[in-house]
Amino acid sequence: MTTYTAINLIARPTGPVGSELFEIVQKDMPSVGKGQFLVKQNHMSLDPAMFGWMSADTESYIPPVELGTVMRSSGVGEIVESDHPDFSVGDRVMGMMGWQEYFLSDGTGMNKVTAPLPDEAILSVFALPGLTATQGLYSIGKPQKGETLVVSGAAGSVGSIVGQLAKADGLTVVGVVGSDEKADWIVNELGFDGAINYKTDDLAAKLAELTPQGIDVYFENTGGPIQHHVFARMNAHGRIAVCGMIADYPKAEPDLAPNWIPIIKKRLTIQGFTMPDHFGEVPALLAKLTPYVMKGQIKHRAHVLNGLESAMTGLNLFFTGQNKGKLIVKL
Amino acid sequence: MTTYTAINLIARPTGPVGSELFEIVQKDMPSVGKGQFLVKQNHMSLDPAMFGWMSADTESYIPPVELGTVMRSSGVGEIVESDHPDFSVGDRVMGMMGWQEYFLSDGTGMNKVTAPLPDEAILSVFALPGLTATQGLYSIGKPQKGETLVVSGAAGSVGSIVGQLAKADGLTVVGVVGSDEKADWIVNELGFDGAINYKTDDLAAKLAELTPQGIDVYFENTGGPIQHHVFARMNAHGRIAVCGMIADYPKAEPDLAPNWIPIIKKRLTIQGFTMPDHFGEVPALLAKLTPYVMKGQIKHRAHVLNGLESAMTGLNLFFTGQNKGKLIVKL
Repeated sequence: MTTYTAINLIARPTGPVGSELFEIVQKDMPSVGKGQFLVKQNHMSLDPAMFGWMSADTESYIPPVELGTVMRSSGVGEIVESDHPDFSVGDRVMGMMGWQEYFLSDGTGMNKVTAPLPDEAILSVFALPGLTATQGLYSIGKPQKGETLVVSGAAGSVGSIVGQLAKADGLTVVGVVGSDEKADWIVNELGFDGAINYKTDDLAAKLAELTPQGIDVYFENTGGPIQHHVFARMNAHGRIAVCGMIADYPKAEPDLAPNWIPIIKKRLTIQGFTMPDHFGEVPALLAKLTPYVMKGQIKHRAHVLNGLESAMTGLNLFFTGQNKGKLIVKL
Repeated sequence: MTTYTAINLIARPTGPVGSELFEIVQKDMPSVGKGQFLVKQNHMSLDPAMFGWMSADTESYIPPVELGTVMRSSGVGEIVESDHPDFSVGDRVMGMMGWQEYFLSDGTGMNKVTAPLPDEAILSVFALPGLTATQGLYSIGKPQKGETLVVSGAAGSVGSIVGQLAKADGLTVVGVVGSDEKADWIVNELGFDGAINYKTDDLAAKLAELTPQGIDVYFENTGGPIQHHVFARMNAHGRIAVCGMIADYPKAEPDLAPNWIPIIKKRLTIQGFTMPDHFGEVPALLAKLTPYVMKGQIKHRAHVLNGLESAMTGLNLFFTGQNKGKLIVKL
C-alpha cells in the first residue's frame, strides 16, 4: 500500500453536519523516522465535542481544527512499524489520531492499551466518555447516597456512565432520553430508577412524579426545555455540572436559560467543565472508575458505523438523537 | 411610656412595596423577666433581602415573615432594662430586632457592639453588607491581583464594599450603577477604575472599553440586561457570585438568563449564596474585613430615613435605584 485515506475539514458547520464540510483525500504513506512509529487505526470515536472543534470559535477550550487539515478524533489502533524505543510493532495504542487510516506519531499523547477489552469497550468506557463522566460527576456533582440525580442525554456515552455511577453510589437516578427504546434501556438494562422521554412526556408532571424529593444533582448534556423543568425542582445547595448543550449547538440563536433568582434562594452551583483541563487527573480518574467497571456496574453499548466515510454524516446522529450508545467508526 | 410602636406585615408584595402591606400597631411595654433584657432600637437597616422575607416562597433560605407579625430587620440599639447576666443597661447591641421601637430579648442572636463607630457605620460596613460582600467575593469570586472584576449595584451597600475590597487587592474594578451621580461617587470617591450607567450608556460598547482584558469575576447584585453583556465577556475559568437580582424580584415573569453554552466553553462557575448559611463564619469574615476598614480602604455612605414609618415606603428606593448608599432608618 502506498497511499491511505484521510478526511479533511474544509468548512465550518452552521447547522446539520454533512459531507459538504469535508473532503476525502489520499495521502502518501509516510516513512517512519527515528523516534517515530506508524499506527493503523482500527476504531475511532465520534463525540459531541467535535462540534466545538469544527467551529471557528477561538474562545473555546481547544483550538478549532484548521480548515484543510485532518478532522480531529480519538481512536484505537495497532502499531505496524516502529523506530521508537518505547513503542513496538503489535502494541495497541489509543490517542488523538484523527479521521484517517494511518497515523505517524512520536509518542506524544499516545497511550498503550493493555486492558483485555475490545476496542469498542475501551472507547466507550475508558476513553473520553468515562473520564468525562467521572470528572464531572465527582468534582462538580459531589453525589451523596440518598440524593436524587437527573442526567440529560442519559442514553448517551457520558450520560449512561454518569447514571450508573450514581446508582452504584446509592442515589435515586432519573434519565432524560429521546425515545422509548432508550428509556427502556436505561431503566431495564442499566438500572435507572426512571426515564423521561423529552419528546413525548409531559415534562413537568413526569419529572415531579419521578423526583418526589426534588433534585440535588443535575448533569446537563443537552440543554433544551427539560433544563427549565429540572432547574425549577433543584433542592437547596444543588449542584449542576454543565457538560454538553447538544440541543443548542446547531442553533444560530441558542435558547435562553432560567432566571438566576433560584441560584440565590437555593444557593445553587452551576459549573462547566471540559476534559482537556483535567488530562493531568486521568490516572486518578481511571483509578476511581475502574472498580465500578470491574464489579460489572458499568454497562455500555456501542453504535458502530462502518468505514471512515461514515463519520461525515454519523455526527448528525447526535442532533437527531438516533445514536444508540457510543458512536464508533470501524475502519 | 406604657406602649411603643411596631409595624406588622399584613400582605405579600406583588410589585412595588407600599404602606398597604403593613399596619402600624401600638404594643404594651413588656415586663423584663429573668434572663431577659429590653433594647431601645436607635437605627435599623433596610436590605434588598427583605423582599424575600416578605414573600410567601417557602423554598427560600429563611422562612417568610408570617402575616400579622412584626416585619423582620436588623438594627442597633441600647439596653434600657436588664435581668440578664451578660447584658447590662447601657450596652450597645446589634441583632434582628424588627420594625419596632423596643425589643425584648433573651440574648439569642444578639451581639454587643464595642467598635467606636456610629450606628450608621456599623450597619453599613460591619453588619449584613460587609459580611455579604466579604463572603461572596472571597469564597466564590476568588479575586486575584491583576484580574478584572465587574460588580452590579456598585453604589449599593454590598456592591460598594465588594469593589473597594477588589481594588485594594489589585484588581481592575468596574461598577454598574443607575445614575451619573453614583458613577461619579464610585470612581472619584471609592477609586473604581470605571463605571457604567445602565440607564444611559451603550452597555456593550462601554463594557468592552472598560474591560479590554475580559472579565474574570462578576459579582451580581441586580440582574437586568447588563447580565447578558457581562456574561458574554467572561474569561475562561471566570467566577460569578450571585448575590442579588433586584431588577427581577418585582417581575411576575423574571427575565431569562444567558444560554449555558459559554459555561462549558469557558468552564465558568456560577454560584449563589446568602449570608444566613455562613453565620458560623462571621468571626473569620470580620477578621478578613477589619484590616481593610482600619487602613481606610472601605468608605461608605448611609442614606438615612427618619422615623419608623419611613421604612414602609423606603424599601421601594431599591427598585427605583434612588437610594444613595446603605438604607438606614433612624428611630
